[in-house]
Amino acid sequence: MSREAVVVGAGLIGTSIGLALTAAGWGVHLRDRVISHARVAEGLGAGTVDPPVSREVALVVVAVPPRALGEAIGHALHSYPCATVTDVGSVKAGVLAALWDRQAGLERYVGSHPMAGSQHSGPLAARADLFADRTWVITPHRRSAPSSVAVVHELVQACGAREVVMDVEEHDAAVASVSHLPQLMSTLTAGTLTDVPDTHLALAGPGLRDVTRIAASDPVLWEQIIAANQAAVLDRLRGVRMSLDTLITAIESTADRDELRRQFERGVDGTRKIPGKHGRAPATYGQVVVEIPDAPGALAKLFADVGAAGVNVEDIAIEHDQVRQVGYLALSVTPDQVAGLERTMRDGGWVVSS
Amino acid sequence: MSREAVVVGAGLIGTSIGLALTAAGWGVHLRDRVISHARVAEGLGAGTVDPPVSREVALVVVAVPPRALGEAIGHALHSYPCATVTDVGSVKAGVLAALWDRQAGLERYVGSHPMAGSQHSGPLAARADLFADRTWVITPHRRSAPSSVAVVHELVQACGAREVVMDVEEHDAAVASVSHLPQLMSTLTAGTLTDVPDTHLALAGPGLRDVTRIAASDPVLWEQIIAANQAAVLDRLRGVRMSLDTLITAIESTADRDELRRQFERGVDGTRKIPGKHGRAPATYGQVVVEIPDAPGALAKLFADVGAAGVNVEDIAIEHDQVRQVGYLALSVTPDQVAGLERTMRDGGWVVSS
Repeated sequence: MSREAVVVGAGLIGTSIGLALTAAGWGVHLRDRVISHARVAEGLGAGTVDPPVSREVALVVVAVPPRALGEAIGHALHSYPCATVTDVGSVKAGVLAALWDRQAGLERYVGSHPMAGSQHSGPLAARADLFADRTWVITPHRRSAPSSVAVVHELVQACGAREVVMDVEEHDAAVASVSHLPQLMSTLTAGTLTDVPDTHLALAGPGLRDVTRIAASDPVLWEQIIAANQAAVLDRLRGVRMSLDTLITAIESTADRDELRRQFERGVDGTRKIPGKHGRAPATYGQVVVEIPDAPGALAKLFADVGAAGVNVEDIAIEHDQVRQVGYLALSVTPDQVAGLERTMRDGGWVVSS
Repeated sequence: MSREAVVVGAGLIGTSIGLALTAAGWGVHLRDRVISHARVAEGLGAGTVDPPVSREVALVVVAVPPRALGEAIGHALHSYPCATVTDVGSVKAGVLAALWDRQAGLERYVGSHPMAGSQHSGPLAARADLFADRTWVITPHRRSAPSSVAVVHELVQACGAREVVMDVEEHDAAVASVSHLPQLMSTLTAGTLTDVPDTHLALAGPGLRDVTRIAASDPVLWEQIIAANQAAVLDRLRGVRMSLDTLITAIESTADRDELRRQFERGVDGTRKIPGKHGRAPATYGQVVVEIPDAPGALAKLFADVGAAGVNVEDIAIEHDQVRQVGYLALSVTPDQVAGLERTMRDGGWVVSS
């Protein structure tokens, strides 16, 4: 198999893929409706604007906006008859449906979707490591050739991403929940700021910036994404509207502090479901609980001894026994380290709760 | 004036204030209902758990949860008869109303609110620089003594924050918009995740994490904050419910792509209203537009020459003339640098649009 690739669409994603493939030794040819984008991508090292030899192309990555995807994929299947074609669109089912009646070449199409990007767009925001350690979903269909799935797998590997395989409906449901709904909530929140006086906005903190960061994304792109995932997105939005109604009712009835607190607790529970770093399941840690003596300087020594133990402490919390009037430091470590740390602290003269 | 201070409540905010005041040369005395918190704060260098000489205390910072504020402030005014008392609560009007009928000492109370913090709580999360370059609102009332306002000003200075003066109603309206509504939107978004399968959550990206970050905040604290700012928060929530209804209708009617795009554009406009770094108004830049020649390696040389010009380029964008089929690099710089950079680029042989 040759290692000649074509990237169609020299935006943020396409250019980043070009950079990663080039670094991995592929010969990348860049195509874009707006020639300047391809030239800038070339200037950044993402490939060449020179055309390839069509039959030598092994991989085509279609990275154009959602509305143009079906046509661009069909065109690529036709123009590069030996190539695996993948797209990186945010919504998969509709694109596949538009292509399904194609007789020739559909076995060479395997959709995919790298879960990466930001509110920035265009080739100048591209990075070779944009996909490093990120999830990349592959959505083969029942006519996809295994050899084509293998080529897309190579693409994901070359970009340093973690592969997840799903069918197109499951993918679209998943992104509706973890990407499209949060985007809309961010956009709605940011939209409220247009009516806020500048003197009030002077009080803005990092919390507001975090919530509204992705609201700066390209409206033209997102209008297409949402329209392409209409049913799944509506389902999530109607659900959150019901939660919003419940929340408003809880705040209106001054007596219902319990419901208000439950809403906040549900939010905390939700954040704990998000996977930890590197895609691992939310971490489960064991705890080592050490008594805090009531003596000057003791706490500093306790911290020092914990550090000297050389165990990676993921989290620390304070607990307090109101009856005995004693404080405790609860150290969160991986379960396999609990016994060893307990032993080390006891050896150092500390009182460890069992 | 002595430089003896008392911090009541050794949580994230109180301990951070203790650290900052200690670094600025104040003698800080720590108080907390949970003794372990005060001991940990002492161990971290935020002050001492030894009691002060009451009449020598010049400043009391009350950093307890909203429900306990009124009583704690009243207690502090009584116990430290020469001290200015400030609180750092997120909602000001209700607290002031609860204290208003006090005859003695109210002139020594000047409420304030540092716009800092995170979803973490407790003394172990504290930092001396938590307030550096952040906004700190001071809300003097009409009976506040100027000398007490001056002491709170010193506190803000010692913590490295930027002072903003507001009356209590305006403050509560402002935080409803820039803090409380975004908190609730984050909490609602995170709450939807409790129904999402783990296999779908594996696709979570930084966008979701950004939107839901502050949803991990303490439910008990936030239930009190929202309840204390009921009217203003309800007003914002009802407004966003209307926007959500409009959004749902727009997505339901497949024809209305314009309304959908308008919602996203409104979100983008909202993000642009948030002040830039260091509290400056959203920056206004001038543009220098340079033609991108159609020659290999030219773009790299263009970037190199821009870099050599030594001008701080805040942003770069690509523009394209579809008629002339020419691309342009638009460089955003501060307005006072525009003329100089244009001259430098022309001297280097580049074509600069005027």
